[in-house]
Amino acid sequence: MTRSVRERMVDSAVVLLAKRGFQGASFTEVLAHSKAPRGSIYHHFPDGKEQLIAAAVDYAGARAVLLLDALSGRSPAEIVDAFMAMWRAVLERSGFTAGCSVLAVTVSADSAELLARAGEVFRAWQARLAELLRAGGLAADDADGLATMMIAASEGAVVLARAQQALAPLEAVHRQLRRLAEAYGPEQGQDDLGPG
Amino acid sequence: MTRSVRERMVDSAVVLLAKRGFQGASFTEVLAHSKAPRGSIYHHFPDGKEQLIAAAVDYAGARAVLLLDALSGRSPAEIVDAFMAMWRAVLERSGFTAGCSVLAVTVSADSAELLARAGEVFRAWQARLAELLRAGGLAADDADGLATMMIAASEGAVVLARAQQALAPLEAVHRQLRRLAEAYGPEQGQDDLGPG
Repeated sequence: MTRSVRERMVDSAVVLLAKRGFQGASFTEVLAHSKAPRGSIYHHFPDGKEQLIAAAVDYAGARAVLLLDALSGRSPAEIVDAFMAMWRAVLERSGFTAGCSVLAVTVSADSAELLARAGEVFRAWQARLAELLRAGGLAADDADGLATMMIAASEGAVVLARAQQALAPLEAVHRQLRRLAEAYGPEQGQDDLGPG
Repeated sequence: MTRSVRERMVDSAVVLLAKRGFQGASFTEVLAHSKAPRGSIYHHFPDGKEQLIAAAVDYAGARAVLLLDALSGRSPAEIVDAFMAMWRAVLERSGFTAGCSVLAVTVSADSAELLARAGEVFRAWQARLAELLRAGGLAADDADGLATMMIAASEGAVVLARAQQALAPLEAVHRQLRRLAEAYGPEQGQDDLGPG
């Protein structure tokens, strides 16, 4: 049950990134949030802040893939619903103060190495979602397109929801994603969303 | 033709926010980028950095609304194409180093006042886009939903494109938005995307 000091620091970095971006996840803030002793920085992250943030990006990435694994065996519409419910929980639990730590790193860190790592995480999420959608009956191309759309649209919707301190943007995007997922429904097998 | 020192500073703040977030748009960086004399800070922004960033958010917001005005009279599909072309240009011109300054403020500034301002800008973009889509033939509800989706999905796609240093996420989202826009097409008048 007891997490290691390193785990607590990485978890705190994810939380702080999600709330205030790269600059908000300073060593000082991470120590205060995780209640880790000061010496932990140089013990666990001898290469400095970038090493801590890289670990946070990887951890946030892996944790989301684990959450996605729980959606195995569902229909595309159910996958959309569960995916959006995860984001809704992030907003509600934080009182609209938190979003995606990986997005925050992408737009506020000044490091090619961290950017590449964020890119890997987005790619891994897209691949796992596409796999679930294919297992749910979508054709490979449709699954790829919808998976990318789900990630992009939810990331953007969370930003709009934070800025407006309201769930409305997330709910609107949810409805649009449901339309796309239902239109791709496997039973019809159509290529086009329009009426036949 | 000559912009005032204040205009140059605000413009530089928008560029720096779009590239590196709130912390990247420090007074030092803005002075260097705009080549404004040091005294300009206290002359034009006596209340400090937050005043400069607020002006940058408002300016970025108003400039985007002007760009949207140019889409008047187009069909929903054409509006989607032109909107995504604007984002594509931001990515290509900057070599994938720049995104949306208003998104950056939302996720990296620690200020309720700036957050509220970012929320106003997103709301103004949504309202203008929805108006254009209605003029292009969409029902009010469909126009509202698609406008929110266009903003959320493009914001997210630009983040994915920066992280992956590739246009692919933007192109995938563009195709999905076209599907939605075409399915809402006014001539069919259907409520549902599925085949009849």
